[in-house]
This record gives sequence, C-alpha cells and structure tokens, in this order.
Amino acid sequence: MVIDTALLDRFAAIVGPDNALRDEADLALRVTEDRGLYRGTSPMLLKPGSTQEVAAIMKLASETGTAIVPQTGNTGLVGGQTPRAGKADIILSLERMNRIRDIDPVANVLVCDAGVILAEVQRAAEEVNRLFPLSLGSEGSCRIGGNLSTNAGGVAVLAYGNMRQLCLGLEVVLPTGEIWDGLRRLKKDNTGYDLRDLFIGAEGTLGVITCAVLKLFPRPVGHQVAFAGLNSTEDALKLFEKASSLCGPALTGFELMPRIGVEFTTKHIDGVRDPLESPHPWYALIDISTSDSAETAETMVHALLEQGFEAGLVQDAVIASSVAQAQALWHMRESMSASQKPEGGSIKHDISVPISKIPAFMAEAEQAVLAAVPGARVCAFGHLGDGNIHYNISQPVGADKAEFLARWHEVNEIVHGLVLKAGGSISAEHGIGQLKRDELAAIRSDIEMDLMRRIKHAFDPAGIMNPDKVIRA
Amino acid sequence: MVIDTALLDRFAAIVGPDNALRDEADLALRVTEDRGLYRGTSPMLLKPGSTQEVAAIMKLASETGTAIVPQTGNTGLVGGQTPRAGKADIILSLERMNRIRDIDPVANVLVCDAGVILAEVQRAAEEVNRLFPLSLGSEGSCRIGGNLSTNAGGVAVLAYGNMRQLCLGLEVVLPTGEIWDGLRRLKKDNTGYDLRDLFIGAEGTLGVITCAVLKLFPRPVGHQVAFAGLNSTEDALKLFEKASSLCGPALTGFELMPRIGVEFTTKHIDGVRDPLESPHPWYALIDISTSDSAETAETMVHALLEQGFEAGLVQDAVIASSVAQAQALWHMRESMSASQKPEGGSIKHDISVPISKIPAFMAEAEQAVLAAVPGARVCAFGHLGDGNIHYNISQPVGADKAEFLARWHEVNEIVHGLVLKAGGSISAEHGIGQLKRDELAAIRSDIEMDLMRRIKHAFDPAGIMNPDKVIRA
Repeated sequence: MVIDTALLDRFAAIVGPDNALRDEADLALRVTEDRGLYRGTSPMLLKPGSTQEVAAIMKLASETGTAIVPQTGNTGLVGGQTPRAGKADIILSLERMNRIRDIDPVANVLVCDAGVILAEVQRAAEEVNRLFPLSLGSEGSCRIGGNLSTNAGGVAVLAYGNMRQLCLGLEVVLPTGEIWDGLRRLKKDNTGYDLRDLFIGAEGTLGVITCAVLKLFPRPVGHQVAFAGLNSTEDALKLFEKASSLCGPALTGFELMPRIGVEFTTKHIDGVRDPLESPHPWYALIDISTSDSAETAETMVHALLEQGFEAGLVQDAVIASSVAQAQALWHMRESMSASQKPEGGSIKHDISVPISKIPAFMAEAEQAVLAAVPGARVCAFGHLGDGNIHYNISQPVGADKAEFLARWHEVNEIVHGLVLKAGGSISAEHGIGQLKRDELAAIRSDIEMDLMRRIKHAFDPAGIMNPDKVIRA
Repeated sequence: MVIDTALLDRFAAIVGPDNALRDEADLALRVTEDRGLYRGTSPMLLKPGSTQEVAAIMKLASETGTAIVPQTGNTGLVGGQTPRAGKADIILSLERMNRIRDIDPVANVLVCDAGVILAEVQRAAEEVNRLFPLSLGSEGSCRIGGNLSTNAGGVAVLAYGNMRQLCLGLEVVLPTGEIWDGLRRLKKDNTGYDLRDLFIGAEGTLGVITCAVLKLFPRPVGHQVAFAGLNSTEDALKLFEKASSLCGPALTGFELMPRIGVEFTTKHIDGVRDPLESPHPWYALIDISTSDSAETAETMVHALLEQGFEAGLVQDAVIASSVAQAQALWHMRESMSASQKPEGGSIKHDISVPISKIPAFMAEAEQAVLAAVPGARVCAFGHLGDGNIHYNISQPVGADKAEFLARWHEVNEIVHGLVLKAGGSISAEHGIGQLKRDELAAIRSDIEMDLMRRIKHAFDPAGIMNPDKVIRA
C-alpha cells in the first residue's frame, strides 16, 4: 500500500520539512519496538509542535482516509504504537510537545503536554516538594501520552491507583481534527459522560491525547522497605492482609517474588545479593510510606514483621537500614524480568486475578504449565496487592529457545484459561494493542465487543485512528 | 400522551400484577421527589425482581418505543429519576433487587444488586470488619444504583474518592434489553474501553445498572475530629495544606463552614451547640483516621492544631474527646442545609473550583451576590479538600420567600459565571438530570456535547432510556 507523494507533501507542510521524516533509516526505530516483536511499515513520521498542528494533521487524515498511529516513547509492550505491516500508516510522534504547561502545588496539579517524559514529570513535582506517584521500569523514556493511552500502572498502584486515578483532565484531538478541551482541574465534577476515562486506556484508537492535568500528592516523610522470606503464596496473602489492615494507605508496595527470581537476579544482575541467609520458596518486598513522621513508618514496619513472625507467616526478614539498601531491594524486584534473559527464552503473561484467588491460581497454573512443558521454570512475580502477576516462564535448562518460544500461544492459552476461570484479566497493565486483540474478541461477550465497536465508530467513523489496534475495524 | 392498556398489560406480565403499580395514589410519591421541585407523569411503575426481568422490560420498551425512567431511592436532587411531565414514561424501580450477592473480605469486595440501600452496604461491610466509605446525608434511603448513576460523592471523597473510585465492576441492562456482564473484581484490568465509568454517572441514560462490585477497605482504628475557628478562607486553605501534608491519606475530612452556618444550626437544630467560646468568621471540621493505631491519629491532630496555632491560622479549637462529641461536630456540619429552612428561601449551588482558587472565588461570589440581592445571607460550606462548596444563599431577613426564589436562575447565573471563570464545575456532586441540562449545553463546547450525543445514540438508538435527562434527545 502506498500514499502518493503529493499527499505526503501536504502532511509535511503542516509541520515543516524538518519535522516530517521519510527516510527509511530515520523511521527504522519507529516502525518497530525494543524487542522487535512488531515490525510495521510507514511512509512518514510527523512531529507536530502544537495541538493545532496535530489537529491539522487529523483533519487532513480524515479528509483523505489516511491512517494515523500516535506514538510517544515507543515503550509499549503490545504493539499498540507500532504501524501495521504492509500498510501505509503515518506515525504521529508527540515527542516535540514536551512542555510542562503549569504546576500548582497548592491545588496539587501539573499540566503537561503528552510528549513529556514520565521521569521529567516526577522531577518537576519533586522540585515543588510534591510527588507524582506513577513509576515504571521505562520511566526514563516513556511519555505521558503513552502512559495515559495504556492506563499505565506500575509499582505504586496499590496506594495511588493507575493513570485513570492520576489524571483530572485531558485535551484530545479527535479523528476529525476537532479539539476537545477537557483540561479540568477538579476532583469532583459530575457534568455529563466520562469522556476522560474513555480516552484513557483507549490506546490511541479514539483520538490523540495532546495534554493532561495530572494529580500531585504530598511527599511522604517516612519510608521503610522490608524483605521477608515466606513459605508459601498462602502465607504471602495472609501477610498482605495484615499489612493492609495495619498500614492502610501507608502500604505503598507489596511485591511477591519466587525463589527462582532471587536466584536469577543474584546470578545475572550486577550488585544484587540475596539479603537473607537461607533460601525461602517465596519472598515479599514490603514498602511503607508515611506523611506524618519517619517514626510512624518505622513503627509500622516493625509491628508488621513482628505480627508476621508471631503468626508463623514470616520465616526471616530484613529491613533496609539506608536509602541505598532500600534501592537495592527494589532493584532486585525491578530487574527480575531482565534477569530471565540469560536463562533463555521466556513466555510472558501480564495477568491479574482477584487477590484472594492468587494462591490457588499460582498452584494450578504451575501444575498445568509443567504438565505441558516439563522442566519449564515458572518465574511469577509482581504486585500481589493489586492481584497483578507477571507470570513469566523461562525455558527448561538446555532446551532449544526457538522451539520453546514456538509454544507461546499454546502456553498463553493454558495460563489465560486459568486466569479467566478465576475471573481475572489477560492484560492487567500493558493493554491490548495488536498482541491480544484477537484473543480479547474471543473471550469477551459479543455485546461487550459490540459496545466497543459502537464507541469506536461514533468517535472515528472514517476508521483512521490507530486502526486494528484493540479491536478490528 | 398515553400508552394503551394492552401494552401496559404486557409490561405488567413481565413482573407480575403485584409488582406493576398503576393507581395514581401508588405512584404519587414516585412521580415527584422530596422537595416537590419536579412533578412528572407516569402510567405505571414496574418493580422487577431480577436482572432477567429488567432485560425483558427493556426489550419490550425498545421494541415499542416506550420511554423508561430507572429509579432507586428517589433521593436525587436534579430530577434525574423523575419521569417527564406530560409524557408517559414508565418508572422502573430497582427496589426489589436488594440482595447482597457476595462479600469477600480478603479480596475486599462486596457484590450487590442496584436496589440495596447504601446504609445496608455500610453495615454488611462492618460485619466483616471492613469499611465501605461512601457516606451521604441520604444514606438511610438512597440506593446503590442511584449512587452509581450519579457518581455520588459525599463526605469521604477526600480520602476514598467518589463512586467511580469505589466500584470495580458492573452489570448493566442495555436499552435493547441485552445484558452486559462487567462484574469484574479486579483492581488492574487494561482490556479495552472503560465501559464501567461510562455507565457510572450517566444518570440512567445509557442503560440500567442492576448489580455492582464495590471496593471495601480496612476499618481505621484511630479516629480524631477537631473543630477550629479561623479568620478567613485563605487561612482555611493554608490549614488544609498543612493537614494534607501532615496526614496524607489519613486526612479523611476537611470541611469548611461559615459563621452564619454555626448560627443557623445552633438556633434551629436540636442538640447543636457552638463548641467554641467566641465567634469566628470561618470554621474547619477536621477528620483524621488512622489504620495503625489510635495514638497516630491523636498525635496527628495535636501536631496539626499546634502548627495551625503557631502559624496564626487557628484562632481557637476543640478536639472531640468522645465518639458522641465527634458525632455532634459532624451533626452540625450535616444539618447545615436543613438549618437554612427556618430562615426562609434558599438558592442553592453545588459547585467545585480548583481548591487554590477557593478564597478568591468565595470573596468575588459574595460581593456579586450581595450586589444583586442586598441583604442576602450567603451560607457557603462544604468539602474544602475537594474544592466542592455547597454555595447556598438564604433570603434577606424579612424578604418575601417567593420573590426571592423567583430570582433563582438570575443568581445561578451570577454564581456559575464566577465558577466557570475559575475553571470550576456547575455540578460537583448531584449531576445534571433535568435541572442543569440546558445550562450544561450552554456552557459546554459544541464538540463535547456532540461526543456525548454520539455516545447516547450509539447506546440508545431508540432514545427510550431516561430521555431528556443530561442531554436532550
């Protein structure tokens, strides 16, 4: 499929020649993503510098039936930001729109363009003694537009929620080129349908988010991180219940990790050491943040571990005694996925189940996976407090990587079958994109898919807005 | 407008004759609401006993073009639940669907029919040592379906959010009679468009909510309530900032009240006394809840008042020393609206502005109101921490009530004009319904109204679902 040069010239004229890339070499990194799982084709990448330019692009696209794929940090994991293969999708990159428009520490809001890097938002908040709590592995390169479009989660969801909870208002360019100004700064506003939350998580299929009002929070003054060795996922769940009751919203992290994850990280990741003397089947990383005083966090973490020991839930534990130690514990958790790479192929799942069902799900899933792939090494870890597990499976030792990865869909079906049986989600964090689009259609009711298609058609009648992502046109 | 008896009989057959009311006397309280502001007409009220019966009703309504008005506790304040005047809207009451389907204190979820009374949900949560935080003046009679349909807020929004934040999943009967089963129990689920939040706050115009999965929370163990006399709204805002930084999510209430509100309540409401020795222009009611220990709340409240005194923000203060005293302080705040009744007519506004703009807005609005209605008594109070003020205005002493109330729209225009200038909302909590429908259309951009109409049409092509509420057909 090709677009004629005259039309490309018209698009280029909107942003100026320097901001319209057509060379294959310039586009190479943008038609694919980090892992190379998706490779699309595109005749052009546009870098508009303002909402008005985005609007002009969408207007022209709408008039000429040209498909547009919005892209920000290009760190998405489901191919939502990648142009389709064999088509002529134009990539619309928001990277030049990277201005923090306003910051109000009294109202606790920050207003920024969609192209601002997440870490920049965190820094800007810190400068006015506030916290923007969204935190992800890719925070140094992912951008707010993508965070919003995927309703990003990360490690602080337990206490602060995901992107839907962290956003008060949006500016969106619609597929027609019209601009919706929904840049409200209000915590309470019951005036009509919730358009904001419809655009958030829509993965760029309903419009192009160009600006957002984000919520800020007071910075906690007390922070404690503990690492506990546990016998079972049942014990982990019981310990989480105790932590949740004791700490309430001060419980800012409760991550579950398996022994094999500790082995992988200590073996492959620089500077990671097993903090406990002897091995344990499971581990919990517990993060507590308090706003009134450092002592409250200290009292809490000691009380929790004491309760855990007394109830026989905690076998051994350490409390980080410095910021460096706290960071080292988090570093272990955050490098768990990377530590699987040297172990060969890994089949991944980004799932959630109601947290009361985690122990049963983990046991059933491991049994089913091992029955299908004897010797496979399940390295399932993640945000226990949210019911969100990164259910990763490393290949058997010595197995052929390609052969193992060829069973991706077969293994997905086994794991997702059990997830659905438990009332869970096949995409807790990463979204649908291209990766899970057909699977979503297969597992959702006809009426739900139909409602989604009706919304898509109502917003994008020409079908030009990131087509074939989330749902098929 | 009339519906023929044969059609009414077909509707009645779905629920059985005992659950299909046609007598005018039986319908009298259902075609109007408490204050009698809206009076509609209806040939029939149906009380289905199951989701399937609701679906059958909607299917028949869809086939015959019959308008349906969902109703639960009938406590709404904008006429959203009232049938239209001069039409033949059938009322669909969810009151018989009042079963708590499931409660899981480990996963912290409660699943209940839309007809369950809010206070029953609170009680059921308490029985398993959990908190359902939504709390409203009408909690003894309002029902979950209405709370969801209006995205209810109340006094605990500051810490726990409004109904959108408190709901994980929904079951909805669509205008066509199809059932959408979205009864998910997951905190993280990024699988497609956010249908849930579209139905929440849609005031019954997109479908009939029949069941919901609600979030539960650990019950706090420490609770402190303080009442502080302040010189100005500027000081109130500064004190709120201190409270928010110090207490973080443990700050579960920060209510602003004017002197006149304390005068009205002490004069007219049984058992309310001024807790402070001398009068102050403004007051803050501060509510702190902690999960780790009672001492933490105690330490916090003392530290906050100390900081407030030192900074010259707090002129005088009391801390409730018993549960009864804490309740008495809240009782004053909660009866503030009722205490205006004996003072004559009251023109009300349910508005929000970004909290940093509250002092300027309050000053400007009072000046503008007094310029238009000399002698009017502004009694503006509410959830300062959410930027949500119930901007009520009592008539001048000795004025004619009817004459004063005849200026309702004129005064609304003055106040709402300033609200919009401050980037605020003309309906922070109560919704749009009939009351603010035309005003919403006037203040919103064409593109926003158009998007709302496109959604309405996509979900309800026959236009039978609570027509002419929120937006005109």
